[in-house]
Amino acid sequence: MVSKAIPDIVVGRLPLYLRALSFLAAEGRQVTSSQELGQKLGISAAQIRKDLSHFGEFGKQGTGYDIKYLSEQLRRILKVTEEHEVALVGAGDLGHALVHYDGFAGKGFRISVVFDNNPQKIGRRLGTFEILDSESIETIIADRGIEVAIVAVPPNAAQEVVDALVRAGVKAILNYAPITVKVPEGVQVQYIDPVIHLQRMAYYL
Amino acid sequence: MVSKAIPDIVVGRLPLYLRALSFLAAEGRQVTSSQELGQKLGISAAQIRKDLSHFGEFGKQGTGYDIKYLSEQLRRILKVTEEHEVALVGAGDLGHALVHYDGFAGKGFRISVVFDNNPQKIGRRLGTFEILDSESIETIIADRGIEVAIVAVPPNAAQEVVDALVRAGVKAILNYAPITVKVPEGVQVQYIDPVIHLQRMAYYL
Repeated sequence: MVSKAIPDIVVGRLPLYLRALSFLAAEGRQVTSSQELGQKLGISAAQIRKDLSHFGEFGKQGTGYDIKYLSEQLRRILKVTEEHEVALVGAGDLGHALVHYDGFAGKGFRISVVFDNNPQKIGRRLGTFEILDSESIETIIADRGIEVAIVAVPPNAAQEVVDALVRAGVKAILNYAPITVKVPEGVQVQYIDPVIHLQRMAYYL
Repeated sequence: MVSKAIPDIVVGRLPLYLRALSFLAAEGRQVTSSQELGQKLGISAAQIRKDLSHFGEFGKQGTGYDIKYLSEQLRRILKVTEEHEVALVGAGDLGHALVHYDGFAGKGFRISVVFDNNPQKIGRRLGTFEILDSESIETIIADRGIEVAIVAVPPNAAQEVVDALVRAGVKAILNYAPITVKVPEGVQVQYIDPVIHLQRMAYYL
């Protein structure tokens, strides 16, 4: 159960395992194996067993993994047993899609505040949210202690937004803008980029 | 230059290398190294050299990689030197965001047709596109020989859309709906799922 020095690439696979387990659970399944998970994910069974072994013993030789138990343990390891509040910056088409996205429920995240810098949007509603002025990012996010943010603004505004989020105390940023942003040490950024996925598939066409 | 049996995980990293190179090129840089790329990507320099060695010799010991040349070679390997037409299914918020997305330009993909099943949307415009009836997916995509599609529909409609795309001859599908879809052998699916990225970062919070 020692959690030091887990390679980041191992951490990066845990959400994939958790998602595969939740699909199996949704099919009514109760037990799975590293072989089955591996086939679903295109990862070797040995790799999966090795990854999980960093965190403890989750399966029994010959009987496999209890899906509910392993899911709970992965959620605990990933710190998503409770919901993190998420600040969304950008109330455009993508912001609308994210506010209405079905996929966050029960996965550890909940959009709880929405910002935009467009005077025509500020004060209007997006779903259940009132769109707040991006000028207030620092005060509102800091007040509420929000650590996670999603950036869904045009590329030329992304760095400025990220800077404000960092000053507000945000530690994890999911960036949809197709540019790399600079952040200080201790702040994480992940990118959502459809091109990466499309190019990977193009290789096989 | 033998291209058989390249591990899929290696193929999956090539778009990341290409993106990092394009960011460096945008900064006016002409030469880089496996060390620098590795630092930007959180991948070891040795891994990058090993990945690239599957495809040939791209750098010189001591002088590093010519950014323009390596980018061209990666584009050639990934088959994105010319643009693939992409069919977009789903003209909701996400579909709007994708049609207006800045990130596809010059990356090998161009949305060229948009479908939706909502009678109130069919026949209307989305950007420069007329939204077409999802009922016509099979005929139109097959006629035009489109091999790549993006699915941006609600989860309960995703499998049906994917089935139609597969019948139309689509070989590569990028799925934004938060469910796994079934496809026959020979058809690739990649998923865009913000939860995977958020959970990975939550581990470090």
